[in-house]
Amino acid sequence: MHMTLGLHKALQQRPDAEAIRFMGRSTTYAQFGARVARLAGALRALGVKDGERVAMYSLNSQRYLEYDLAVPWAGGVLVPVNIRWSAAEVLYSLDDSGCEILIVDDTFKTQAASLAKNAKTLRHLIYAGDGETPAGMLNYETLVAQTEPIDDAYRHGEDLAGIFYTGGTTGFPKGVMLSHNNLGAAAQISVQLGIYGPGYTYLHAMPMFHLADFAPTIALFLCGGAHTIIPMYEPRLMLQTITAERPNVLLMAPTLMQMTLDWLAANPEAAREMDLSSLQYVLYGASSISQTLLDRTLTVFRSAKFIQGYGMTELAPTASLLMPDDHRGTLLRSAGRAVSGVELKIVDGQGHEVPRGTVGEVVVRGPNVMLGYWNKPEETAKAVRNGWMHTGDGATMDDAGYIFIADRIKDMIITGGENVYSGEVENALMSHPAVAQCAVIGVPSERWGEAVHAVIVPKAGAKVELASIQAHCRELIAGYKLPRSFEVRSALPMSSVGKVLKTELRKSFAAEPA
Amino acid sequence: MHMTLGLHKALQQRPDAEAIRFMGRSTTYAQFGARVARLAGALRALGVKDGERVAMYSLNSQRYLEYDLAVPWAGGVLVPVNIRWSAAEVLYSLDDSGCEILIVDDTFKTQAASLAKNAKTLRHLIYAGDGETPAGMLNYETLVAQTEPIDDAYRHGEDLAGIFYTGGTTGFPKGVMLSHNNLGAAAQISVQLGIYGPGYTYLHAMPMFHLADFAPTIALFLCGGAHTIIPMYEPRLMLQTITAERPNVLLMAPTLMQMTLDWLAANPEAAREMDLSSLQYVLYGASSISQTLLDRTLTVFRSAKFIQGYGMTELAPTASLLMPDDHRGTLLRSAGRAVSGVELKIVDGQGHEVPRGTVGEVVVRGPNVMLGYWNKPEETAKAVRNGWMHTGDGATMDDAGYIFIADRIKDMIITGGENVYSGEVENALMSHPAVAQCAVIGVPSERWGEAVHAVIVPKAGAKVELASIQAHCRELIAGYKLPRSFEVRSALPMSSVGKVLKTELRKSFAAEPA
Repeated sequence: MHMTLGLHKALQQRPDAEAIRFMGRSTTYAQFGARVARLAGALRALGVKDGERVAMYSLNSQRYLEYDLAVPWAGGVLVPVNIRWSAAEVLYSLDDSGCEILIVDDTFKTQAASLAKNAKTLRHLIYAGDGETPAGMLNYETLVAQTEPIDDAYRHGEDLAGIFYTGGTTGFPKGVMLSHNNLGAAAQISVQLGIYGPGYTYLHAMPMFHLADFAPTIALFLCGGAHTIIPMYEPRLMLQTITAERPNVLLMAPTLMQMTLDWLAANPEAAREMDLSSLQYVLYGASSISQTLLDRTLTVFRSAKFIQGYGMTELAPTASLLMPDDHRGTLLRSAGRAVSGVELKIVDGQGHEVPRGTVGEVVVRGPNVMLGYWNKPEETAKAVRNGWMHTGDGATMDDAGYIFIADRIKDMIITGGENVYSGEVENALMSHPAVAQCAVIGVPSERWGEAVHAVIVPKAGAKVELASIQAHCRELIAGYKLPRSFEVRSALPMSSVGKVLKTELRKSFAAEPA
Repeated sequence: MHMTLGLHKALQQRPDAEAIRFMGRSTTYAQFGARVARLAGALRALGVKDGERVAMYSLNSQRYLEYDLAVPWAGGVLVPVNIRWSAAEVLYSLDDSGCEILIVDDTFKTQAASLAKNAKTLRHLIYAGDGETPAGMLNYETLVAQTEPIDDAYRHGEDLAGIFYTGGTTGFPKGVMLSHNNLGAAAQISVQLGIYGPGYTYLHAMPMFHLADFAPTIALFLCGGAHTIIPMYEPRLMLQTITAERPNVLLMAPTLMQMTLDWLAANPEAAREMDLSSLQYVLYGASSISQTLLDRTLTVFRSAKFIQGYGMTELAPTASLLMPDDHRGTLLRSAGRAVSGVELKIVDGQGHEVPRGTVGEVVVRGPNVMLGYWNKPEETAKAVRNGWMHTGDGATMDDAGYIFIADRIKDMIITGGENVYSGEVENALMSHPAVAQCAVIGVPSERWGEAVHAVIVPKAGAKVELASIQAHCRELIAGYKLPRSFEVRSALPMSSVGKVLKTELRKSFAAEPA
């Protein structure tokens, strides 16, 4: 498998079909393919060798899709930058991956210019915007126009295709290495859903740096459907785009569903002009859906079937799916069953399968399991044992193979579809002058699924205020990782071996979102 | 990917569902899985090590399906015996692959006992029949009953899964080595057709040793459908089984379609009692279908959609598919388009893509391309160059990527769905006392697609007769490879470099079947 396969097939079978709709412009596969082969040529001319890392720091755009295809075409490795991260986190990921080229759009050109001063390996900045090219940057369109197209480098199979950074338990992100086969397997899973094909259109409403959007991207190329892109999620923009462009498939975190519903309820007049009847499938993931939210969503997206995915970046990213017919009764609390071609089981600490209904750790084996963490062989060996990815998620399995996520064993909070590791937030908090001890947990939130909550033991005589904590943390970690609420305690509950008993801390919060 | 994945998933998700219907007996996945794990234990106890070859010489049966799963479960490599081959060919394939264990049914127990005397590496014969165990053989059911189940050896990925023998141009068969990934990729293609799933039943009417039947077998396990098995194709038996068991999917060579239609026409009374309305898909391959045959078939199988596959053993075996909607007009002469995840192009002698509409060689690259020919590195290097399998088939491609097979560049005849290499037949003919020179070609046949035809230059004064030629060849090659007709010439047309001009020989035969 290789990531450009679908594009080659489209060029062979339907070069004149529409590939992309963005900002009112329509682009055929032939036009898109020519730009990809030229951009790849430019990257190669700038010194990109097989396996070299190329980053992109940008909102969604057609050029993002060109980057996604041109980097593997040139033999390079994708490093999509998480646009929600702090400057320190972005810099870490660029340095850690040894990135030599960064492509940046108008929104992030200032940040990128500033980053470039401190980045260790960065050699070139490419400006993929529509204004004047900032000093010290190359112009994307000039490169595409002035370079001859090149042949596909045909990196494939176990070759590294991308490094996708994910929050780290140790305070800094880890680079998840995914191969062409990993991403190909992920795309095949999407292909098998049977929701893409010629005549189908997928709307990129989630950020394109996100792996959740990347698997559908590759699947869509394999199947020959078209891409509609909006620069970023915004309720009105998304709804207007659905109304005008009539896409068939949409991927949303439940948080975005919630925001969409809230916007529609708050804007009844505008809501009446929105036509969502083109949507046949709504894919969602990162957290389960409540009956209340599902009911509300089904009222609005009444033409659509719902598919839930569960997984993690290390699994490229899908491990299980809850299919449309399973959106009923108690199965609504399930994360579905193992996807095609992938094994999933629930094991105890010794790796033995536990009886059905007993909580254990979710482990997954198959072609979607990452190559490993970039430059972190020890953490890789801990995570992938005997081919099985140890997710750190606790779950039960019922007699029909459906899994129910019980707890985040490794202490991860999923808020608004983003992973936040408690450890990261705790590290940031501990450097605050008023904090003696702390523990960070996720608490139920109707809006975010979970919200970051801090339990703080203040230093003697010190006073703790939310604004001060947030301001302090904002310098160190991304905005979505900031504690949204906190409580003060005189001591943290501890186990006999000195571990904070977070289960105790969580007890005061209702299981159901307030 | 590994070949037992689908079985594991079925055991996890639907252990009590029906897996197999055979001879009026129904078997659940739990029952089947237990037998597979016990048979695997028995094979291991008999000394099967990782990568060791285990053959089966049998008509279709439930035990054949157990063999298909138990050998990989035990870590071994499948070597399904072509039941149409001559004793010399079977012996060659067992010796060539270094087979140590042969499982045999009632139909072939006598041949197997005789083979065992001459086979170089065979250590054990296992009798998988229902009568008395022949002397010197182990009893299959005793082994299954007396052995404890073992854990899956989990051979996977690029590990060798099976050696599938195919007719050789050099007079003897070649062993095509297919990995778990190859066969997994093949199964995924079938999965993506969306024609299997829980509640679906596939009828094994083609011989199970045949790779064409093997890909659906693995796909069916992945999707969770049920298998209905008949021991072998026979028109009445197949039609009665369809009527009684109501399978949804059927795979047939066009020759079998033809025989089925002929039987129905000849038996109008029995035909009225047949109910074929359960069939949703009819898969066919190995040759294209004429409008006449399609029209006739559609009248009888009126509930079914038709899917044509084109490929070869070396491609595990599918390279392209003609989908139901493409069964119209001139596309009926097409072999369809490249399957998902696989690249296909038409190239000239230098490997460059030729313009659309120009004849060139079909080459294929992807996860379905074989590991190589067993013990034949030179022939492997000739066939697979730079990842591209060179099929030897000549074809054109139209602007939408559909291919049209123009000629068998490598001189292969497809008769009744079986490959016959002219070279094999020519070798056999040349040892006949009356033959001075010969050339073998395929000629159009309504019944067989192509029929084997010999052009013979007799020795001075010698007389050539069809019966004598057939009797002579029958000792050396399989029955389906025998010339069905012949003509005598005083000389063969030759090219300037001394190659027989078979295109000249073919000119006297109409392009359309008589």
